[in-house]
Amino acid sequence: MNAFFDRIRQRQGEVNSLLCVGLDPDPDRIPGEFLRQRKPIFAFNKMIIDATADYACCYKPQFAHFAAVGAEAELQLTIDYIQSLGIPVILDAKRGDVGSTGDFYAREAFDRYHADAVTANPYMGSDSLKPLLEREDRGVLLLCRTSNPGGADLQNLVLATGEQLFERVADLAANQWNKNSNVGLVVGATQPEELARVRQITGDMTLLLPGIGAQ
Amino acid sequence: MNAFFDRIRQRQGEVNSLLCVGLDPDPDRIPGEFLRQRKPIFAFNKMIIDATADYACCYKPQFAHFAAVGAEAELQLTIDYIQSLGIPVILDAKRGDVGSTGDFYAREAFDRYHADAVTANPYMGSDSLKPLLEREDRGVLLLCRTSNPGGADLQNLVLATGEQLFERVADLAANQWNKNSNVGLVVGATQPEELARVRQITGDMTLLLPGIGAQ
Repeated sequence: MNAFFDRIRQRQGEVNSLLCVGLDPDPDRIPGEFLRQRKPIFAFNKMIIDATADYACCYKPQFAHFAAVGAEAELQLTIDYIQSLGIPVILDAKRGDVGSTGDFYAREAFDRYHADAVTANPYMGSDSLKPLLEREDRGVLLLCRTSNPGGADLQNLVLATGEQLFERVADLAANQWNKNSNVGLVVGATQPEELARVRQITGDMTLLLPGIGAQ
Repeated sequence: MNAFFDRIRQRQGEVNSLLCVGLDPDPDRIPGEFLRQRKPIFAFNKMIIDATADYACCYKPQFAHFAAVGAEAELQLTIDYIQSLGIPVILDAKRGDVGSTGDFYAREAFDRYHADAVTANPYMGSDSLKPLLEREDRGVLLLCRTSNPGGADLQNLVLATGEQLFERVADLAANQWNKNSNVGLVVGATQPEELARVRQITGDMTLLLPGIGAQ
């Protein structure tokens, strides 16, 4: 068991919950009481974290919501604050790229922001994920079947083998990419049959079900 | 013809070149003369830009190389400097996500960094690309067939229809996602037959061939 999933399991025992709380702060919708503070996005996140920390198994701050407004420092403060409570953090950034770029994405998520895990995109294949997978003490949550309407455009394509593309991704994740036991899959909870199929392929691999929590 | 590809075409005429210069600065390998400056990464990039501006059709700074070391300000300086020379900038960030997150990625690339175009990943499908595609005056360069070894893991999978996955992506890009004439495709130049196949599917769509340039 890898360190990230260890922490998740430990936390799950402590709070008897698998709830993953997403932090997607919209700077245009933050209430005035926070806007008057010096770090409004962090202050808003802290309010949410303080209100949910007793029930949260982990938190998932979404990168773009900070990056769009140059709030990297507040993303860092948010991550640091969550970890100071002993709760693991998944950075939702959907990374993955080749060569030196892949290394720099691993450095960004794990060395700069100190995230416990990061979400990643499988389209560029094995070597694009390698720099993330090699970080044995961190987690990699790979997009498999996303629940948005367009998710079907590629992920539900039927292969010549009869599998759908998302099933092949689940198979690669379970049988090739999980040598360090640090891989989980992002699977939408809106299609129970697909979820069951992924579970069948991956055994007891951790699945992140957006909108519902980490299972 | 959209504004981004207009600028590319105009620039192509001015310099008689289709060269896209990648800027992937490795902070650990920047020579000492630049490290002594207050903005070493920008100073290093500026040297490269000044040495190549007479021949460059466009520049492609790679996001992770800046983000790993918290150098967002130097990424912005780099983009601003290139544009001050009248040359278009492709932000290589491989974005794409759903709902409000997609909107924030569009804001990041186009409103914060003022990039002329951004690279994007098609795995999450139509609605994940929509916020980027809707920006009629900008370009979206979509991953299709990447030349890294792992690129084949998903992109070369054969579908039940006989197509390979990258051919379906090319087809979606040409026939569904290009309503604003602002889409190009990233296709590795290492497999000439695949490049020819993409060309056949997409007609005169702009292809970005990493390592070789924009065609």
